[in-house]
Amino acid sequence: MTTTGAGAEVPSAVDAAGGAVPDVVTDHDRGIHGYHKQKDEHLKRLRRIEGQIRGLQRMVDDDVYCIDILTQVSASTKALQSFALQLLEEHLRHCVADAALKGGAEVDAKVEEATKAIGRLLRT
Amino acid sequence: MTTTGAGAEVPSAVDAAGGAVPDVVTDHDRGIHGYHKQKDEHLKRLRRIEGQIRGLQRMVDDDVYCIDILTQVSASTKALQSFALQLLEEHLRHCVADAALKGGAEVDAKVEEATKAIGRLLRT
Amino acid sequence: MTTTGAGAEVPSAVDAAGGAVPDVVTDHDRGIHGYHKQKDEHLKRLRRIEGQIRGLQRMVDDDVYCIDILTQVSASTKALQSFALQLLEEHLRHCVADAALKGGAEVDAKVEEATKAIGRLLRT
Amino acid sequence: MTTTGAGAEVPSAVDAAGGAVPDVVTDHDRGIHGYHKQKDEHLKRLRRIEGQIRGLQRMVDDDVYCIDILTQVSASTKALQSFALQLLEEHLRHCVADAALKGGAEVDAKVEEATKAIGRLLRT
Repeated sequence: MTTTGAGAEVPSAVDAAGGAVPDVVTDHDRGIHGYHKQKDEHLKRLRRIEGQIRGLQRMVDDDVYCIDILTQVSASTKALQSFALQLLEEHLRHCVADAALKGGAEVDAKVEEATKAIGRLLRT
Repeated sequence: MTTTGAGAEVPSAVDAAGGAVPDVVTDHDRGIHGYHKQKDEHLKRLRRIEGQIRGLQRMVDDDVYCIDILTQVSASTKALQSFALQLLEEHLRHCVADAALKGGAEVDAKVEEATKAIGRLLRT
Repeated sequence: MTTTGAGAEVPSAVDAAGGAVPDVVTDHDRGIHGYHKQKDEHLKRLRRIEGQIRGLQRMVDDDVYCIDILTQVSASTKALQSFALQLLEEHLRHCVADAALKGGAEVDAKVEEATKAIGRLLRT
Repeated sequence: MTTTGAGAEVPSAVDAAGGAVPDVVTDHDRGIHGYHKQKDEHLKRLRRIEGQIRGLQRMVDDDVYCIDILTQVSASTKALQSFALQLLEEHLRHCVADAALKGGAEVDAKVEEATKAIGRLLRT
């Protein structure tokens, strides 16, 4: 998902449009998703969660008491939901807000999509 | 929370501003929250949930089997979350999208507020 | 589901059985579910939740800010889950423990049933 | 945590006790937790979840669309909860049922402990 080529062409497209639509070309259009800048932080979080899951495997392997394993499962689920919330916040801030600038059906579609994703998180 | 008075004054405020900021005065500013139009539907949903809670009281009173009561609790919780999701969708569509039009710190504050509300829903 | 009559007869039934099955006739058999003694407390909790749901209707009716309504939804959901947890604890203490005394397929069936109920609570 | 040696001695210990306490020495006492026999299945499940978490890292690294990442987070959380439910079912079937056979304070403590673990799962 390289954005360099697209990034190089987008400005001229804006020029061609006479600068009349400055709101409409956004980071999101350039392929830069909301979470782009937090990428390192996200990867660090996910590696920590991966470590927790490996810790769970060691616990099962060592016949650790069931309740202690369940406590660790709760911690891992909480960490996953924390990651999801941060991703969602960036998504709302960038993708949904971008759609709002474009207006109309775009924002409705983005909001519906985000709400469905929140519903899936709630149901797990 | 009547909006008539405010609604009558807001246009002149816009006139005074020279119409330069037509995007900035929104339904939300006029005190019309995202869920305004769906009010009747929301009230209907909540009355149905109230009926479910009264049903739970009858079940406890009639010594209904614990597991059947738990099933009904799950249904009520699901109905509450469904209501929350619909409210949230309207909030994102109206309040957050409105904030996006105003830009800057406003949208950041609204998104942070919405994310915290989603976090509270997830944790219950 | 009156238990008075049954309660009066059960002891003699046990006597008639020669006391050979003292583990097998339990409160649960007598129609006294786990939550029987906490009935008043449960009804009190549920009436409080019913009040919260009516509070939500007033909030919607008064056009209260969406986020504040969502906070109240989270509180109601939490209260419902608290009620469910207490009911579940009594169920495990009485019905599941009773089944364990009877042994065999009975306890397996009860545990499977309880786990499914917990799964439904988790998914909402 | 080898149970072979202990397993060989336990029967004679029971014999020595005159068979008066056959209910009291259980698999659980021998260090065999509820999930012992399902160990391989649990490890397989956890390795699959570990793979999902690594998949999430690749998605973030490849700038995959936020909503698709959130969908994968929901799937991983669901898988973790499924694992927790299975562990819990085995715990109830073995540890809690064992405690019921011993009766008294033991079963109360085990049920309270299990309920708290369920509460932690619900809150994440």
